[in-house]
Order: sequence, then structure tokens, then C-alpha cells
Amino acid sequence: MRNLVPGEPSGRLSDAWRFCVGTGRFDLALRRDYQDSLALVQREIGFRHIRGHGLFSDGVGVHQPYEYAGKRHVRHSFTYVDQVIDAYLELGIEPFLELGFMPSGLASGEQTVFWWQANVTPPSSYEEWAALVRATITHLIDRYGLDRVRRWPIEVWNEPNLDIFWQGADEAAYHRLYEVTARTIKDVDASLQVGGPAISPGSDEWMPRFADFVTSRDVPVDFLSRHAYTSGPAQPVPFGVYQTLAPASGLLEQFAITRRQVAGGPLEGLPVHITEFNSSYRPDNPIHDTAFNAAYLAPVLAEGGELADSFAYWTFSDMFEEVGIPTSIFHGGFGLLTHRQIKKPTYHLYAFLARMGDQLLTRGEDHLVTRDDTGRVTVLAWAPVDVTGGPAVAGHTVRLSIPFPGESAFVLRSSVSEEMGNAWAAWCEMGRPRSPHPRQLDILREAAEPVRRHQSLPVTGGTADLDLILDRHEVTLVELTPVVDETPPWWDDRRLLGLEEGMR
Amino acid sequence: MRNLVPGEPSGRLSDAWRFCVGTGRFDLALRRDYQDSLALVQREIGFRHIRGHGLFSDGVGVHQPYEYAGKRHVRHSFTYVDQVIDAYLELGIEPFLELGFMPSGLASGEQTVFWWQANVTPPSSYEEWAALVRATITHLIDRYGLDRVRRWPIEVWNEPNLDIFWQGADEAAYHRLYEVTARTIKDVDASLQVGGPAISPGSDEWMPRFADFVTSRDVPVDFLSRHAYTSGPAQPVPFGVYQTLAPASGLLEQFAITRRQVAGGPLEGLPVHITEFNSSYRPDNPIHDTAFNAAYLAPVLAEGGELADSFAYWTFSDMFEEVGIPTSIFHGGFGLLTHRQIKKPTYHLYAFLARMGDQLLTRGEDHLVTRDDTGRVTVLAWAPVDVTGGPAVAGHTVRLSIPFPGESAFVLRSSVSEEMGNAWAAWCEMGRPRSPHPRQLDILREAAEPVRRHQSLPVTGGTADLDLILDRHEVTLVELTPVVDETPPWWDDRRLLGLEEGMR
Amino acid sequence: MRNLVPGEPSGRLSDAWRFCVGTGRFDLALRRDYQDSLALVQREIGFRHIRGHGLFSDGVGVHQPYEYAGKRHVRHSFTYVDQVIDAYLELGIEPFLELGFMPSGLASGEQTVFWWQANVTPPSSYEEWAALVRATITHLIDRYGLDRVRRWPIEVWNEPNLDIFWQGADEAAYHRLYEVTARTIKDVDASLQVGGPAISPGSDEWMPRFADFVTSRDVPVDFLSRHAYTSGPAQPVPFGVYQTLAPASGLLEQFAITRRQVAGGPLEGLPVHITEFNSSYRPDNPIHDTAFNAAYLAPVLAEGGELADSFAYWTFSDMFEEVGIPTSIFHGGFGLLTHRQIKKPTYHLYAFLARMGDQLLTRGEDHLVTRDDTGRVTVLAWAPVDVTGGPAVAGHTVRLSIPFPGESAFVLRSSVSEEMGNAWAAWCEMGRPRSPHPRQLDILREAAEPVRRHQSLPVTGGTADLDLILDRHEVTLVELTPVVDETPPWWDDRRLLGLEEGMR
Amino acid sequence: MRNLVPGEPSGRLSDAWRFCVGTGRFDLALRRDYQDSLALVQREIGFRHIRGHGLFSDGVGVHQPYEYAGKRHVRHSFTYVDQVIDAYLELGIEPFLELGFMPSGLASGEQTVFWWQANVTPPSSYEEWAALVRATITHLIDRYGLDRVRRWPIEVWNEPNLDIFWQGADEAAYHRLYEVTARTIKDVDASLQVGGPAISPGSDEWMPRFADFVTSRDVPVDFLSRHAYTSGPAQPVPFGVYQTLAPASGLLEQFAITRRQVAGGPLEGLPVHITEFNSSYRPDNPIHDTAFNAAYLAPVLAEGGELADSFAYWTFSDMFEEVGIPTSIFHGGFGLLTHRQIKKPTYHLYAFLARMGDQLLTRGEDHLVTRDDTGRVTVLAWAPVDVTGGPAVAGHTVRLSIPFPGESAFVLRSSVSEEMGNAWAAWCEMGRPRSPHPRQLDILREAAEPVRRHQSLPVTGGTADLDLILDRHEVTLVELTPVVDETPPWWDDRRLLGLEEGMR
Repeated sequence: MRNLVPGEPSGRLSDAWRFCVGTGRFDLALRRDYQDSLALVQREIGFRHIRGHGLFSDGVGVHQPYEYAGKRHVRHSFTYVDQVIDAYLELGIEPFLELGFMPSGLASGEQTVFWWQANVTPPSSYEEWAALVRATITHLIDRYGLDRVRRWPIEVWNEPNLDIFWQGADEAAYHRLYEVTARTIKDVDASLQVGGPAISPGSDEWMPRFADFVTSRDVPVDFLSRHAYTSGPAQPVPFGVYQTLAPASGLLEQFAITRRQVAGGPLEGLPVHITEFNSSYRPDNPIHDTAFNAAYLAPVLAEGGELADSFAYWTFSDMFEEVGIPTSIFHGGFGLLTHRQIKKPTYHLYAFLARMGDQLLTRGEDHLVTRDDTGRVTVLAWAPVDVTGGPAVAGHTVRLSIPFPGESAFVLRSSVSEEMGNAWAAWCEMGRPRSPHPRQLDILREAAEPVRRHQSLPVTGGTADLDLILDRHEVTLVELTPVVDETPPWWDDRRLLGLEEGMR
Repeated sequence: MRNLVPGEPSGRLSDAWRFCVGTGRFDLALRRDYQDSLALVQREIGFRHIRGHGLFSDGVGVHQPYEYAGKRHVRHSFTYVDQVIDAYLELGIEPFLELGFMPSGLASGEQTVFWWQANVTPPSSYEEWAALVRATITHLIDRYGLDRVRRWPIEVWNEPNLDIFWQGADEAAYHRLYEVTARTIKDVDASLQVGGPAISPGSDEWMPRFADFVTSRDVPVDFLSRHAYTSGPAQPVPFGVYQTLAPASGLLEQFAITRRQVAGGPLEGLPVHITEFNSSYRPDNPIHDTAFNAAYLAPVLAEGGELADSFAYWTFSDMFEEVGIPTSIFHGGFGLLTHRQIKKPTYHLYAFLARMGDQLLTRGEDHLVTRDDTGRVTVLAWAPVDVTGGPAVAGHTVRLSIPFPGESAFVLRSSVSEEMGNAWAAWCEMGRPRSPHPRQLDILREAAEPVRRHQSLPVTGGTADLDLILDRHEVTLVELTPVVDETPPWWDDRRLLGLEEGMR
Repeated sequence: MRNLVPGEPSGRLSDAWRFCVGTGRFDLALRRDYQDSLALVQREIGFRHIRGHGLFSDGVGVHQPYEYAGKRHVRHSFTYVDQVIDAYLELGIEPFLELGFMPSGLASGEQTVFWWQANVTPPSSYEEWAALVRATITHLIDRYGLDRVRRWPIEVWNEPNLDIFWQGADEAAYHRLYEVTARTIKDVDASLQVGGPAISPGSDEWMPRFADFVTSRDVPVDFLSRHAYTSGPAQPVPFGVYQTLAPASGLLEQFAITRRQVAGGPLEGLPVHITEFNSSYRPDNPIHDTAFNAAYLAPVLAEGGELADSFAYWTFSDMFEEVGIPTSIFHGGFGLLTHRQIKKPTYHLYAFLARMGDQLLTRGEDHLVTRDDTGRVTVLAWAPVDVTGGPAVAGHTVRLSIPFPGESAFVLRSSVSEEMGNAWAAWCEMGRPRSPHPRQLDILREAAEPVRRHQSLPVTGGTADLDLILDRHEVTLVELTPVVDETPPWWDDRRLLGLEEGMR
Repeated sequence: MRNLVPGEPSGRLSDAWRFCVGTGRFDLALRRDYQDSLALVQREIGFRHIRGHGLFSDGVGVHQPYEYAGKRHVRHSFTYVDQVIDAYLELGIEPFLELGFMPSGLASGEQTVFWWQANVTPPSSYEEWAALVRATITHLIDRYGLDRVRRWPIEVWNEPNLDIFWQGADEAAYHRLYEVTARTIKDVDASLQVGGPAISPGSDEWMPRFADFVTSRDVPVDFLSRHAYTSGPAQPVPFGVYQTLAPASGLLEQFAITRRQVAGGPLEGLPVHITEFNSSYRPDNPIHDTAFNAAYLAPVLAEGGELADSFAYWTFSDMFEEVGIPTSIFHGGFGLLTHRQIKKPTYHLYAFLARMGDQLLTRGEDHLVTRDDTGRVTVLAWAPVDVTGGPAVAGHTVRLSIPFPGESAFVLRSSVSEEMGNAWAAWCEMGRPRSPHPRQLDILREAAEPVRRHQSLPVTGGTADLDLILDRHEVTLVELTPVVDETPPWWDDRRLLGLEEGMR
């Protein structure tokens, strides 16, 4: 039996999925491969904001103490900040600012996280921290204009609930940091947006306490933020890990919890940003490279906008160095793209979503149907996945009856799956070359393109019947375009070879 | 039973197919769409030379008579010649010069051909014609250097055997024009290459008479040229024609005849250039847009280099105006590409050939097998076509046993057919929009890409068995790349979801 | 004595000068050199609209009659129209549509104008003309949207008052054409803008009669248009002409007359567009290539916006073929740019104007002073010209006292003159090569750049004194930027060589 | 009195100056600003090789130890090496490899140098070092081909004579490192080029001892290398230093010494590469930004090729982080270009040299004269500098009599000086903004262009007299091009305004 798609939209498809995307540390944006990847992502997907760590870390060089005339001074320097943000704007994306980590010249301790040694201790002077924040925000307004900076959410620190990211996971110290920062920002301009507490999964109790803190002390807060992941503990092998995964519904649950936590309180209605999410939180889990990952996340992207104001895929590119410099083109990185711009299946999931209309017609457990102003109907459909390790199923069927004008629809179908649009599979077949030759890179880029098929679909009685049989872990985008027939009366395909009817 | 491919090459695959490509009239090369198309063609195919009509026609402005101090003078002007040839060289292609048609200021009559009114009468003054030729060749040498111009074949006129292209198809007048031209060119520099008679099919007898003429009068000649087409008479409809086609072997026959005609005579061994060929000689026959055309020409490209020194596909782009300005994106033009760079199946036939190795392993009636220095083996295979109008056959099979090193081959297969990589089919399904919207152009460009599949093919006993089942009118390129296995010992795809063996 | 510039603006500087620019015939826009030039112009100047002849001429192929089933039909084809307008929009410019000339399939006679043979006879059928107009406008709205096309003025024909442009300069026939066209356009959508009569100088009496005609018959009219030139009769030499010039005030007079003519009548207040202007109306008068031309037009650009709603420089590029194909890189063409993008002094006049602020501080007979939101003050100044052939004057002085904040201004001065930024002068010194070698083209492009000088100008008592001494036919742009001094206290230029004070 | 330039060349101008250029550490090449700068440098100058530190430092990630099955292994990873060298080749430049510094996983100690913490201790295992070298060179040959890698000189370590760069400046340890490395390289392929000892100025005695060492033990050596600088001790201020400078002849002396040191010995005749040189060795001395620096180095570039086989300017770009992240656009960096591609005067010195011919006509203390195949004569001239702090002299004169064909020469003169082509001066006038706004960056880029003047210079009796008056610290390039006069007989500039003779 076919699902009957409604003829009129029930609402707008939220674009919370494109509000923000994650990135490796701030200064990686200086790199050409990074910018090449971001240019491609923006051309074919088009995110609004980009968020990553390390704005204040030493590699960006903002906080530069010096002595002069026998006294300590700090020069705030924006050489790289400007290069990065200029590049972002040129590429049509704006920052979602994350304030952190601690410049070593301002740190109170020596604890670091990551291969690139981000200092995670509180400031040795909250006054100097406030001056750093003030100088940075003031500089951004001076260079880019208040109208623009007002659109850039400003988040205080990253995952302070984990002791690897904030010394001792000291909640009181985080609250102090938040308060100093938020007040400083609002003092620069009251219309700027500040928020937190940017917690990781597993410490949900931080949120109500954060709400109480800001409420009780009347500390400014414009949005709430947290992260969402569904992977289990890391099972390490050299240069990688394996991990179990909870079902994808677990991500939606994490998206939803913050609104529930603040419901009925003074923070009810504040925007909730999931400032990081993915299946696995590890930058070296090969699951990120697979078709499984795309099929796993498809329902999350289709539904997530109902539960949070944004959810940012962590991250757009494999240019990322938290556990060291990748030793292989495919290495389980977070990226939608590898180094050198090979598209992973999850890249296409986003690119498909970017081609959908904004009128929501219907949403099911394995499909999403939209329409746009030109009458084009788009169907996103996905195969089921099994996190318990059962075999991938081929042949899952989605059957839809779609109200459609005219006598036929032009149907274009683009697919990725275990076999189609799957550069990782091709790379495995190639022998998993760590440093592919240029010719191999070209082949991988070709293999990464979705398989596209087209057909003319009859419309009968105002309805087009669309039957989709899905391959293993397939995600597919089907576009139905109205046909205006311009065929002239003399057209006759049977005469293509110039043969009269009788000659055949 | 499988065809056993030899382990060692029998020789080199001729690249006569890429020596030259045809183009619409000279000044069309000033256009951006033309140059965009040529850039794409050069990037993915890479022809050496390009040949078209109209270098001396009024639209290029070379011959500009004027009066001064009461006398007639001629200024030779190269404003557009330089712009075109500069662009050619920038795009990595060099001209195959065709001298013609007649500037109106030098014409002896008013007969013209084509919508763009090329004058096809002899010069009113052979001295002034010689001065025009001399000034042009001298200018080219001055600007581009003798070493370069020496590589550019110079052909005298186009199809003088047809009275539409040369007033009265006057053979004596052509011989005179040829003699004056050839002597002038050799007088500029003896190392320049000049040739003719550039005849169309159907006047084969002109060739021996041309040979006699140049031999008897000791007129310089460095190469012989003619054209090849297999279509029957035009059956017009508005803005188009239908035509019958002879079997593709007829093209190979036309390629071969010139060498036979001069065998044993003083011109034996001269290079023979087929300076135009295609299925139909009409710029408005939809056959050019089809998968049929690619499958029809595949054996011609595979074999032609044995029979002639070059054969130039007429033409690389639909930017062409001989019967007027095209009224529709698909209109049966000669182009490998439409306006706006939509690739036709025949484009891919050329692009596939461009990816083949230069060591010829074997050639059959439905396949061609080569290898390159890196050990990559490439197979071009094609489905049969039926010019008597029988239905296109699906399921034609090519079965090969290929000697190959290692334990597996990485196989990438790219295909175009009635269903795959066929923008024309998609355009028909869309309702044949004459002026597609930008979004439709994007879809057509996507639909025009070959379908690509990849797999790991086992190698057993030094041999890989490749079985290809071909779709209707399919042309397919299969690339087998040696595998160097870099898989580390700890790799285990079964652990991708982090599950221990027992948990599944 | 210095001119004291007011501290506060008296109004906004009109941007009538950038509303529109002229171009060679419509299909020349298909060319790459044309688009390269337009891209440069848009990057550095930025016009809003572009207007040229020939939308309906045969080279664009819109009107294509054919026979089918024994009857005449017309196919309206937009293959090239779309390519051109797509390119315009991509380059950030929109058309100012001119409807003309007559397709030969619709013409009532054989009279043509220009080397490219534009037919200038009335339509053989006004119904078929109306259908052509309707199909074209409807197509544009379908492709580009009504919101966009509503911004594109639509002008009916070109200079019908001249018998070379409209058979017999038949005023009644023009009125009929105008009426049919205007009513057809408004019937498509009442919000579209239509106007005329696009007359050349010398037939001012056409305007009141046009006003009477449209008023009396209630024919729609949204704007009035005419042209302005100041050159005398052509004194031909081969490939060129010399002409006398009236003073530049004659252009301003022509700009002004239309508003006076309709003042007090029902058309009072309608926008007046000067849809062409230049010094000489000939495309082969070397005056266009000179610094004289820039200095001559400077006061016209500075003042013209007070007198008309737009005035369109005829034309942006030398890619122009009305008297044939140019035989030399410099040939007296209308262009701001030559072929190959060599900038003429008048190009820089426009580029200078594009860098000025929008707050008008003052305007004099040899200068214009503006300010922008950032406090930057810009001065455009020009040397006097003498149309009676007196020698160009070096040393003309402009002295200004400019209210300015702070203690110093950073001053950047860019100049073109007989010696500076004058590629034509360099070309003359080179021996006037008609087809410059690539290396010579590079030199000419370098020689075409303005000479730039900078200095620190002291501000005393809130005023900066600026004394400009102008070279022969100089046009100069001076930009004064406020200085925020970031010099650190330890900076000491005297120590650059590491020498202690005593060591010097 | 004028210097008479000889009519025939005395030899070829050495291109030792373009053989190599220096760069910041290896992984900075991943950045876009770096690659944008290198692209510009290659387009306008065109170096052959590029050399910098840090190939083996942690930021490149080549040496990655891991444990597996209870044992230590090392993975050699070329992710970033490939990205960098692919980019180099794409930009038309090839590496001059420097092997160093020590990966922390292979280091025997913890001593580091630079802000980016390069480890400068000997390897903990010479076997593992040899394996690292072997894997790297083998990988490069595999990816880029032996023919290419054979052209890339391989230098062992950097300035081992300084204890900041090599723990304890331990000469025996360096000799051991050199021997192990050189033997490993030659074992990969005997045709590869290896050399050292890469010493800094001030330890000249290391060279003969190095020669003795390699000779006595028959260690392979293909070239000798050292550095050259002329600055005195650093006099620090915050974010910068001042230093005295010795006369530029000191650089030429340092270039010359190595050949003298090995003269008469077994290493006589080996190529000598000055693998770094500049005025100051500090990346924060403002002298690098000045016109002084260009005028100071002009005679060094003009003469250096007589004394060494190459001398590499240290460095092409300010993208450089040895003393931290630059806090200001101008900060005294080594670069020919600042971040954001503002050209310094020394950039133009190189660009001028790149435009000179290869036939050496004459060389003087303030000029260099060459000719090329087309007859173009080029003069590089420079003003004197005074390192004792005397005022810069304006008005220095260079007077030349140059044999030249024809009746006139087209002369193009390009100049940089204290006033001309001097972005640093403009920046100072602007108030030294550390983070210039985009508009300021544009102005600085414009201010950085040389001032260009052109004229027609008469040739009398086969000689052109050229008198150059030089501005303060001016470096100027004068190009004299032969004139082929194409002026038609009817040309008359006096008629430009269309005035008859009598009318004036």
C-alpha cells in the first residue's frame, strides 16, 4: 500500500540543520585545503554559521603579553583572526564564536588537551580575561560592523563539565567565567547574543544549575547550548578506534532534553543550540566515512529541527588535529569531506537536504517529502540501519502517492549507498592507499558522486505513484519536476534514423 | 567463451583520433560559450589541432581595402585572428588552418553559402589573394614563431568539388588557387606544410586528378585531405532533418581510400588527413545528440588510426551557425557539447578514449584493450547498433580474460547508454524545453555524467576475468588498476560498529 | 586664495552617471573579450544598466519564421538572449532594453545601417511585431521574474529622427510603432516601464510632438529619452575621422533640454534618460583614446546628475563593429577599454567617480568634493581643455581648505594626464603597433594605470590645506582618510639602522 | 660624462639569484595566504627552488611511532608533505630539501628553538633516523618520479654551528648525522644530490673541517652550503629589534669565501649554495620593509652570481612564526611580501631582475645593463645607501650611452624609492594600523606598485643617451624597446580636434 502524500503543506521545513556546522580549531581555517573544502560545502550545501575551538589558543596569537618600561602589558592582536573571518565571509559563512581555550600567558595552570595542547585552566586574572574578551568583540564590531556581529552567537567555553576540557570540571569556576564574560559582552553592546554552558552528553544536570545560576544573579543569557553523541567507549587500535552506537533516536532525545529542562522556568523559550553532534565523538572512528553514517543520521536531520533551534554537524572537514596529524586519506575523521575534497556519504545527505523545498508535505520514519514555490516535489528516503550488527538490508521499499499537476513528472533520483557514491568503499577496494596518487584521488572523487537516474513518471488522476527500492544503507533524493511539454507536432523519434515507417 | 587478451602489446594505439577536431566558423571562437566548451574539451579530452571555415570571411576582418591618395590599397588586419589564436594556445590547442572563404572585397562574384553568407567565388585578383595569404602567414610567424607555425597544417579551401562551396565546382580554378597559394606559402618558408584538396565524399575522382596536377607542375604538397560522412539525403522538418545512415564501416572505407588512390605514385606516403567526419553532415540532425551516435562511432575511433593520419570530428561544440541560430538547447548540432556545456554521449566516447593507455593489447569488433606504463589496463567496449531501424539491443556481452598482476584489480567502470549519461534522454523526459532554466541546465549537466561503478575483481592464476553486459547503445570504459594492499593487520570491517564477535 | 570647502554636505551626489552605460550590438555580448571587459568595468566602476542596439536583429535570432503544414509560423527563440542576459546578471549589471532593429523576416524594406546591416524599415505587420514584443517580454519575465524585469527600462527603437536609422525618418510611423509597442508591453504587465523617443541631437522638436502624441492618445509612457554629442562633421581619413568639438557645456545643455520641453505639461516629472552621450558620435575618432577626452568630460559627469536622471556613456568597450572590424588596438573607438582591456583615461574618470563618497560637499568649475560615512573626503579635480586647439596647459592649480578631524590626513592621489596613466601616449611612442605582441599589451596595461602618490597632510585648526597642481589634461582623484595613530611609544625611525643618537 | 655601454654582450647574466628562495617552516605552506603569496611571486619573479625548516618537525607529522602487539613501530606519514609539494609543483616551484629538525618521538633531548618549538637534539637512534630519511626520499621518488627528485638538492640540518640550532653545536655529532644521512640517500639512488653543512656566518672554520671529514671518510657530498647576513646584535624593543648593518659588500664577501676555502682541494668545483641571506637575520627588524633594503641589496643581486651558484633570499613571505605570530601587517618580517600580499621594495628589486635579458652588456657600481633576444635593452640602476646613518641622497645620477637600432627607443621606467612604490611609507603616513581594514589593504597594495613612466627616446648615430636621476633609495628598471613605426602617412596629431591648420 502506498503512503498518500498530502496535497498541501503542513508547515515549513525547519532549516535548523543548516544553521551551524562544526570545524577543527580556529587557525586551521588559515589553510588552503580547509578553505577549498569550505568553498565546496558552501556551494553545494550552504551553512549559515561555523563553530570551532581555539579562538584564544596560542596558535591564533590574540593575547600577546610584553614588557615595556618595566611593566607588563598585553597587546591584543588580530592578524589571524582577521584572515580567518575575512575568509569565512568571502565564502558566505559567519562565525558562531566559541570563547576559549586559555592563552598560555593568561593561564593559571599547565593542563592541556589535544595534540595541539589547548590550555584548559581558568584565567590567572579575570580582569585580563575580560579585557581580552572586550578587545576581541570590540575589534570584530569595528571591522565587520555591529549589524553583522549581532548575528554571531557567542558561546562561553567548551564542555566545562568534562575535566579534560576544564580543569577539575569546576562548575563554580565555569559559572564565574560565564558571568564575567557575559557581562563584558553586554557591556560592549547589549544586543550581542551570549550563551552556554556548551556541555557534553552525560552531565544533563549542569543545565538546570546553569539556569538557576544565571537567573538568580541576573546574568545575561541569550541561548542555551549542549552537545549530542551516541557512541560508546573507544576500543583503540593503532591510529583509530571502534565504538558501539546507540540508535539514532538517542540523538533526537539529546536534542530535545534542554527545552524540557527549562520548560516553565524563566529561560523557557530561549533558543537551544546543539553546538556539536555526530554519531561518534572520536575523530578516528571509520564509521564517519561510511554510507551507514548517512543512513543513520538521515532521520535525525529530517526531524531534529522540531526539537532544537540548530544542530551542528561536527565537522565539515577532516582537516582536524585533535589526536594528531592524520596518517591516511581515510582515517575515520569527522569531516563531511576528507582532505583533498573527497565527499563522504554524509556530505551527500546534507547536499540532498539542501536541494529540498521549504514546504513540508509529510515526514515518515524512512522518508521526508517537501515542495518548493516552483511546484518541484522532493523526496528524501533512507534505508534502515541496525546498530546491533545485523546485515545491511537491500530492497527496503518506500511507496508514495504524490499529488502532482500535468500528465507526467520529470524524475531525477540521486543515490548514495554501500555501492553507490561511496568513495570509502572504492578506497577499500583499491587496497586502502594512505597517500593516494593524484590519479587515485581523481578516481575517488568520481566514485564519490551520487549515482543519478532519471525517468518520465506518468501522472494519473492528479497523482504520481513513486516506488523506491533502496539499496543497502541507501540515502536517496528524488526530485519530481513539472513538465511543460514543448515538443513540436512534427517530432517523431521513430524517424531518428530517417527511415520511413515501412522501411523498418 | 572468453576472449583471451594478450599479455604483451602488439603496438601503440594511434592517436590519430585526437590530432584534430572541427569547429564552427573562425570568429565564433571569440565567444565565451565557445571558449568555455573548448576549455572543458581540452581538460578532459585534449585535441592537438582545431579546424574550421571562414578565416578570410568578412566577419574576421583580415582583408580591408581602402582608398588613399586616389589609389586602392588593402590593409591586412589581424585584430580577431590574434584574439582567436591567442585563446587557442592558452587552451592548449593549435590551429589546423583552412584558407577560405573569399573576402567580399576580393571576390569575383556574389555567390554565398550558409546563413552567415560566406562568399565562395574565386578571387578577382590572384595577386591580391597571394598577398593576403603571404601577409597572414608572415604575421602568424612574427607573432607565434616559425617553430610553432611549422606545426600547423595549412589546407587550401573547403570542398571545392561541391558547387555550393566553390562556384561551379570548377576544378581548374581550384587547381589554380591551390598552386598560387602553395607557392606563396613555400615562398614565405619552405618548411611550412600545405595541402588539399579537402574534398567531400562523392567526388573521389578529384584526388587522383589533384595528384596528377601537383605532380605534373611540381606544385608543393605536404599532405592530402578529404572528408567522410555516412548519412543519406536530408528529410526536412522545421528546424531539423531526419536522414538514413549507412553502416559505420562506410566511414572507415572513406578514411582508407586516399592512401589506396595514391599508392604507387609520387604522393605515396604523404600524410592523409580526414579533416571532417561524422555520421550526418547536417547541423540539425538529432542523431548527433544520441547514445546511438556514440555506439555507432566507437568502432570508427578504435580502428580509424590504422587508415589515416588523422580524422577530425565535426565539431566539438554546438556553437555553430551554418543553418542559422539554433532555436533549442538540443537541436541536432554537431557538437560534442551543446551550448552551455552539456555533454553528449559522443563526448564521453572521446573522453573515454583519452583515458586509455598507449600500448595496444587487442582490438575486436566490440572492444579495444590497452595498457599504460603504470600497468593500468583499459577496456573500451560498445554495444552494436542497427542502421536499419531494428530495436536497440540490451544485454550484449563482452567477455575477456586479462593477464594481470597481483591478487585483485580495482575496477572502475564508466558508462553512457540510452539510460545512462544521456542528457538528451533526460531532456526529452523534461518535455524538450528549448530554453532551459538555470536549474534545468544543472540537472541536464548532472544527467550527462557517465554512470560510474567500481568493484574489486579477483585475479586468479595471473588472470582477471571481466564480463561486461552492455545496456542499449552503451559505450563503456573499464579501468583495471593494480592494487598495492596497505591494509594494516588490525583492520577488521566486522568491528566497524564496535561489536565483539560474540555480540552479533 | 583657497576655496573653503563646507564642513557639512549640501546634499547627495547623484549617481545618474552610473545608472547606465552603452554597448555595441546585443550579440557582441556573447564574446569573451567583451565579458572580460565588462567584468573589469563592473569590478572597478559598477554600472547598473547596459543599453545597446540589435536585440531583434538577425544575429540574435529571436524572430525565426518557418513553414509547417503549408502555413507560415514564427518561432521566437531566446538561445542568445538568455546567454547574454545570464552573463549580464552574473556580472552584476541589468539590461536597459532597446527594442530594435527589424528582423529581416519582419521587415517591410531592405534599407540597412552599419557594417553589420541592421534593417531600419518598419515592420511589414504590426501584429507580428506586437507578437514579437509580447513573446520577448513574457519570456524575460518567465526566466528572470517580474520583480527584476520591472526594473529594466524598455525603449522603443533608436534615433528614429535620422533617416539612416528609421526609413525616411518617418515620424508618424515611429509614433505608430511606439503606440503598438507600449500598449503591448503594458498589456503584459502594467508595472513595466516603457519610453522613447530616443532621438539624436538636432531634432529637438520631436520631443514636444512625441509628448503631444502620447498625451492626446493616452499612450503609456514612463520615461523620455534622447542622446547628446558635441562633435562636428566627420573629416575622414582611412580607418578614422577627425572632428571639431563644441565646448563640454553643450553636453550639459543637451542633458537639460528635455525637462524644459515638458515642463508644465502632463509629462512633467517623468524620468529623463540620456541613453547615449559622448564627445564624438563616431567609433573611429582618436579623441576617445586621449586624456583630453577625460578632462573634457569631467565637468559633465560632475554636474550631469542635476539635469537628467541618467546619462549613459557610449560605450564601455571598443568591441564594436558599426563601421567594420577595428584594424588596430587603438582606433578611436568609443570604449572606456580597448580590446584586451587597456584602460583609457576616461575609464579612470569613471573609476575615480566610483570611489567618491555620496555626501556632496562642494562643486566648482574644476573640482568636486564629497565625503562618505567613514569620514573619508574625496576630491575630483580636472585641468581645463581648449576645443579651439590651443596648447594644453600644465600647472593649473586647485587650492582647497578642507575641514578635517584629527592631526593629519592620509592623502592618496591618483592621476591620469598627457603623461600619466596614458596608454595611448605610450602606444604612440611605441610606433603605434596595430597588433601589439603580448609583451607590448602588458606594457600598455601597465602604462594605463594612474600614477599614485601618497603623503601625510597636516591638519591645523580643524582644516587641511590641499594644493593641487595639475598636469596637462590631468584628471585626479585625491582621497583624504582620517588617521588613527597606532604608533607605539618605542617607535623611532631614526634608529632604523640600529645607530645610537650619538653615532650619527 | 656618460658611461658607454658595449654593443655586444660580455657573457650571460647568471640566474643564481633565482635558483632558490627561503620560506618559513614547512607546514606554513599549507596556508592559503602563503600559497597566494607564492603564486604572485612565481608569476612575477619565478624562483626555481624553495627551502625552509621543519620537514621532520612534529607539525608535519611524518614520524608517528605507535605500539602494536606489544612492540614499538613507526608509521611514516606523508599527508602534509604531499599537500605541500603538490602545491609547490602546481605553483611552478620545486623543493630544496632541508632535513630537520628532530621529531619529538625520535629526539634524544628536549631542547627546542623558535616559538614553534623545533627540537634540536640528535636522534635517539641513528637507525631510526636513517629509516625516516629513507622512507621520505623513497616516497618522494614514488610520487614525483626520480627524474624530478634528482633535481632537488638535499641539505642536512640547519646551522649546526649554533648551539640554539644543534644541541651543544656538537661538530662531531653533526658529522655523524651528515654521514648517516648522505649514505642513506645515496643508497636510495646514487644520482640524488646531498650536501651541507648549512652553517651560519661566524663559524667559517667549520667548512674546511667538514671538507676534511667527508674527504677522509669518503662520505658523499654534492654541494656545499652556508648562510650570509650583515646585521649586528639585536637591540630589542617590544615586538621588534633595531640592528646595525655592515656594508653590503660584506654579503658578497660571505658568498665568496666557500669557493676560496675549498680551492685546490678535492672539493674544488662543487656547487656552492648560499641557502639563506638577507641584510638582517631577525624576522622583526623593520629594515626589511624599506626602500633602503632594496637599494642596499641591489648590488648584491647584480654581482652575487659571480661568487656562488645560488643565494636564497630569506624569505619570500612574512608568513613566518619563529618569534611568534606577527601582531601587525608591517612588523619587520623577512618577506618580499607581507601577509595579504603587499609588495615591499625588495620584492620589486627581484621582479625588476626577472624582467632583465640574459645577455650581460655591462655592470657598474650603480647599474647593470642587459639585452635579450628581441633587442630589448634593460637597465637596473640604484641609489647609494649609507649604513652609517647619513641622510638618504636624492639626485644620484646614472648616465649611459647605449648602442641601439633605429631612430627611437620606447622607454618604460619603473621605480621604487622612499616615495615611490613604497607601501611601508604609506602605512606610516596612515598611522601604522596593525590590522588594516580591507579598504586600507587595497590602498597599501596600490601604493606598493612601482611608479611607471614612459617616453620616446631619440637614437642618434646608433646610440641612445639615457640620463637617470635617482630619488632617495631608488631602485629603477628601465626598458628600451626597439620601435617599428607603423604610423600611417595620414596620421596628424595636430588634427585631433578636427581643426584645419589655419583655424588654430
